[in-house]
Amino acid sequence: MADKPSFEALSAETLPLRLGRTDALTARIGSDTASWKVREVGDGNLNLVFIVDGPDGSAIVKQALPYVRLVGDSWPLPLKRSFFEYHALTRQRARAGNIVPEIFHFDEGQALIIMEFLTPHIILRRALIEGRRPKNIGRDLGLFLATTLFRGSDLSMGARARKEDMALFADNAELCDITENLVFTDPYFDAAMNRHTSPQLDGIVATLRADRNLKVEAQRLKHIFASSAETLLHGDLHTGSIMVTDDETRVIDPEFAFYGPMAFDVGMLLANFWMAFFAQAGHEKAGDRSVLRDELLDTVTEIWAVFRTEFSRLWHSERTGMLYDRRLFEDQGDALGSAQALDCLLHQIYVDMLGFAGIEIHRRILGLAHNADFEDIADENLRARCEARALKFGRHLAVNRNRLVSLQEIHTLAVRLERDEIS
Amino acid sequence: MADKPSFEALSAETLPLRLGRTDALTARIGSDTASWKVREVGDGNLNLVFIVDGPDGSAIVKQALPYVRLVGDSWPLPLKRSFFEYHALTRQRARAGNIVPEIFHFDEGQALIIMEFLTPHIILRRALIEGRRPKNIGRDLGLFLATTLFRGSDLSMGARARKEDMALFADNAELCDITENLVFTDPYFDAAMNRHTSPQLDGIVATLRADRNLKVEAQRLKHIFASSAETLLHGDLHTGSIMVTDDETRVIDPEFAFYGPMAFDVGMLLANFWMAFFAQAGHEKAGDRSVLRDELLDTVTEIWAVFRTEFSRLWHSERTGMLYDRRLFEDQGDALGSAQALDCLLHQIYVDMLGFAGIEIHRRILGLAHNADFEDIADENLRARCEARALKFGRHLAVNRNRLVSLQEIHTLAVRLERDEIS
Repeated sequence: MADKPSFEALSAETLPLRLGRTDALTARIGSDTASWKVREVGDGNLNLVFIVDGPDGSAIVKQALPYVRLVGDSWPLPLKRSFFEYHALTRQRARAGNIVPEIFHFDEGQALIIMEFLTPHIILRRALIEGRRPKNIGRDLGLFLATTLFRGSDLSMGARARKEDMALFADNAELCDITENLVFTDPYFDAAMNRHTSPQLDGIVATLRADRNLKVEAQRLKHIFASSAETLLHGDLHTGSIMVTDDETRVIDPEFAFYGPMAFDVGMLLANFWMAFFAQAGHEKAGDRSVLRDELLDTVTEIWAVFRTEFSRLWHSERTGMLYDRRLFEDQGDALGSAQALDCLLHQIYVDMLGFAGIEIHRRILGLAHNADFEDIADENLRARCEARALKFGRHLAVNRNRLVSLQEIHTLAVRLERDEIS
Repeated sequence: MADKPSFEALSAETLPLRLGRTDALTARIGSDTASWKVREVGDGNLNLVFIVDGPDGSAIVKQALPYVRLVGDSWPLPLKRSFFEYHALTRQRARAGNIVPEIFHFDEGQALIIMEFLTPHIILRRALIEGRRPKNIGRDLGLFLATTLFRGSDLSMGARARKEDMALFADNAELCDITENLVFTDPYFDAAMNRHTSPQLDGIVATLRADRNLKVEAQRLKHIFASSAETLLHGDLHTGSIMVTDDETRVIDPEFAFYGPMAFDVGMLLANFWMAFFAQAGHEKAGDRSVLRDELLDTVTEIWAVFRTEFSRLWHSERTGMLYDRRLFEDQGDALGSAQALDCLLHQIYVDMLGFAGIEIHRRILGLAHNADFEDIADENLRARCEARALKFGRHLAVNRNRLVSLQEIHTLAVRLERDEIS
């Protein structure tokens, strides 16, 4: 252990020298480091990301920094998040297949992961802002959610194996802390790192912070988030963690992975499509985003439908864990009992998912980490109008989630809010 | 490490020689081991328990065995449960005070704990069978529940500290496995280790195993039990884990400790009082248990009331964890918002508690580990009548828990069942 070099951040200049003898990399891109081209392309909040082009191919090198890149070294953050990202990626790839990129190499001490370079993929959020909807995202993301959430839970895993893995990921506490506080708490009081489009949103921000029911529900959802260790979550599944071509979908960046409630990943993901929906007015020219708006709502519907269908398929074909034992249902000739239990579970996921989605929308407009969907709207008055509609929608979801029977009804509300027919 | 002796079970004969130089013991009972008197008194399902009387005092030596004592060495069980018991005892004592016995010594390798000898305490279950109700148990157990469940949760602890402790106890997987399967699953199908009073209960057993709603609810509760890592639970809080005098109460034996839902400890404890209630008819002579029956229901009401009151007091005075942050409520002048959140939480605990209680009642009559409350009723027809009433009561709680508004209403039902006015 004493021989291991201590952590040092890579740069485009030092990368070829430092990784030139890493076989897992040279085998893919070629070993003539003099011909490598290295670009730093990280646009996230936390890490360095390099594209390394060699004579025989390209690869991604992602390295954690010991602080939050978005804020600076005043906010330290453990390098170990790279360890959790690596272990989440390998589990997700085993459970969900090629929608998760291939991992070539992991160096724990340097907190770096070398993985498949995705080309010509772009960030899904960027595609949506530009007005494009890749055609398979509904199917692919529904399948990703169902396979990872089901197979990481006590529905599928052995009880000891899940508990051991939960204990491993429990150490990812600093990343959980970010979610716990930045998502569930900070947006609802005057926290130092908050920001919002001001003064346009000052009024609604004050209203939301005085909204007792909303705050109670946000905290109840935080309680579920923190205590329900149901499955291995991605933990940060927004449209910036998804790369796409017109027909391919890849899910990346699970450094927030931990054991939490199934509904969280679903809710965060759908929230980001709903935000994209409300942001379109800020990007359109002469109503040219009307079709995409419809498609975004259809995508939400499709993700949920595919999730339900695939989750149900796994329930019947892979329910090998300790929960909802077949000996109590199918083996007693009571398949309908198993169906009843499945409906209860899917309903609970649906209800909680709506709550998490509402809170996610709020924190992206009121908290520290905003979305380009809204941020890229240069006209502040226009941006604020889009954001205000989304905030009201999020509040409605979080507070009324037990009473919102269908996504169809929810989407009717979204359309009316977007058209200012209701406010 | 190589010098440590491997595990060896103690006996009354070998104990003085083996523990005669353990200062924590000799300081309390005297070092003249020749005068020690040792009795093995373990009557539980899992462990050896010795009372060691020395010239200066007495102590308890509890040692885990590498198998389930109730079943034999065909069912291995990790010695490490002693480690979890020790760590649970020290945490509970810090949180709940002297209701938890003082620990003098822990030897991890020998899986033994040396602790305070409680005299003239007897097992609470035994007192209840004999027709006595110690006068402070309602208050003491309500306080134990509130202080341990509150202070072991994210309501009180730091987020990282709770996650680390949760990860530590996640390794207690084999003991959790016993609860997961023996409590929540085995009673509802023809599992090999099940037994029940037969043939008298054969009919109702068949009815319960064909009861779809009951089985679905049992599995939903198992799902909550396995995934909700809310607080450090005792994990086996029945009236056999409580020692009493007329005015003192002590809670022992937390080897099943792990991070689970608050409602589980509450529900298991109340279930054991309800079982004692239904068992009284098997022990009474000429109706002489009528007063005790009332007192047992009053005890349930008192435990719950004290729990609510103390939990609420801690909510207001010790809410230092990350959940239900004061900056969202009290600090904004919204104390009523905090009260609303507290009511939501207590209501959820109440509902889930009823469910866990119903399932606990079932497993004690249908599963492997029965209660002396019923087992000591020699007349099998009489025992079966008592058990059948309890089974119906348990089913009602588990299936209807969302609709049972008050304990008063529940106790009216219990009395009617006990009198065969309803069945």
